[in-house]
Amino acid sequence: MTSDTVSAFAAALRVPQGPVDLTALATHTTPAFDGGKAEGRSALEALGPELADLQEQLFANGRTGGACRLLLVLQGMDTSGKGGTLRATVGLVDPQGVRITSFKAPTEEERAHDFLWRVDRALPVPGEIGVFDRSHYEDVLIGRVRRLAPAAEIERRYAAINDWEEMLAAGGVTIVKCMLHISRDEQKQRLLERLDRPDKHWKFNPGDIDEREVWPDYRRAYEIAIERTNTDHAPWHVIPADRKWYRNLAVAELLLGALQGMGLTWPEADFDVESERTRLLTEG
Amino acid sequence: MTSDTVSAFAAALRVPQGPVDLTALATHTTPAFDGGKAEGRSALEALGPELADLQEQLFANGRTGGACRLLLVLQGMDTSGKGGTLRATVGLVDPQGVRITSFKAPTEEERAHDFLWRVDRALPVPGEIGVFDRSHYEDVLIGRVRRLAPAAEIERRYAAINDWEEMLAAGGVTIVKCMLHISRDEQKQRLLERLDRPDKHWKFNPGDIDEREVWPDYRRAYEIAIERTNTDHAPWHVIPADRKWYRNLAVAELLLGALQGMGLTWPEADFDVESERTRLLTEG
Repeated sequence: MTSDTVSAFAAALRVPQGPVDLTALATHTTPAFDGGKAEGRSALEALGPELADLQEQLFANGRTGGACRLLLVLQGMDTSGKGGTLRATVGLVDPQGVRITSFKAPTEEERAHDFLWRVDRALPVPGEIGVFDRSHYEDVLIGRVRRLAPAAEIERRYAAINDWEEMLAAGGVTIVKCMLHISRDEQKQRLLERLDRPDKHWKFNPGDIDEREVWPDYRRAYEIAIERTNTDHAPWHVIPADRKWYRNLAVAELLLGALQGMGLTWPEADFDVESERTRLLTEG
Repeated sequence: MTSDTVSAFAAALRVPQGPVDLTALATHTTPAFDGGKAEGRSALEALGPELADLQEQLFANGRTGGACRLLLVLQGMDTSGKGGTLRATVGLVDPQGVRITSFKAPTEEERAHDFLWRVDRALPVPGEIGVFDRSHYEDVLIGRVRRLAPAAEIERRYAAINDWEEMLAAGGVTIVKCMLHISRDEQKQRLLERLDRPDKHWKFNPGDIDEREVWPDYRRAYEIAIERTNTDHAPWHVIPADRKWYRNLAVAELLLGALQGMGLTWPEADFDVESERTRLLTEG
């Protein structure tokens, strides 16, 4: 996959700055990709070796003083496939270089701090790929819909997020923000599948059906959040996610593009290679 | 792969209780496996789906109140392939269910606590597979060889480890301890390869050559540690590790056997499936 192809995905999926209307963004299309499911899966598999190589270079740089790191933020409604995406994409690279955090409802300790406290503690260190399965955006999504904080506090958070993400970017963090965009009907099908299959019952939560009643409120909260935090240093991508194979391919392409954009190289040796070789070959 | 085959690996690699002589244990053999490299790689790949299924069941149980978890402890001399093993084995399952910790020289804060403090904090939670790349055993290995603690303190640690591991096992942790066993000459070849390849320079540390001078001291420290902590609740396995493909296959088989031994099933639904289906199908 050339970097031109990768740029094609980024260009097609990156949300233009300005007001956002999610109803105008399709959930079942395959932007920047012409093939079907079989071709999409092959294309994803073909990305594996380059993704793994670049991840190892990133890791090697982190071990030798480099500051670069990558943060993938996955957001989306229930069943949009955050976990499946993560497994299909980040699962292609060495798990030692990946730091995954799944954010649940905040604990009492977390609620006692500013909303960015817990995400700050979960950041990748240099050389790592960090993944947030849900994130600080929940605090302006469910936080807004379910009025978990006063309106003025919700309002304050958009700028706080932008300031925090800008500081991260300045410190070497490449931020890739993805909203997995599914239709309300696709969600219904996926919830029904969880009910139909005993091996999926553990994933079902009756509360998920209640949340469907306020689907338009969540959509509006996403639109506001994306518009107000769609910055140059941390832009938003909306991924049509009704087709799982496309969703996986698209996120993998965005990851690959982000890694390519870091201009990574193998670190130089900080020792004399020849004298070390001689030491080894002449040891007792 | 049947559980008989898996048991064959465990039976062949588990260290009998009593004194240990690592010079009597081969580093280049392939116990419990008849084929060569190609067959070994195919056999490993064939384990992937069952490993992934069982890991997901373990994860599902953890999410629904189950206590079971797995802890894989990887020890071995420099270049023995702890990282490579981890990638080839744990890399076959969903990274969301895996918690990997690579232990380095302890920090000042860690040194101020008991040696088990930092490993205790890195334990898997229920449903997770935890991996220790190096572990509390360093405190009786390099700790003993380099006299990083008084002799009486080193002595105390063996029983402390056994008590701690027994408590873990009683709490639902299945512990799989593996020593990756390479020859001193194989290590030399691997260090030379790191010097020959610019993409491996970052892995080379001149101190690794100095450690080779006390190879027999490390071997003796391993023998003592294995003998004194080779308990029924947390037995040791010594894996011949000169052949990377065998090392990977053997650890994957031990992992699979441990997961099979947990008697996992999919959790029962804690809601009424039919009434939830009706709610979904009749919603507005």
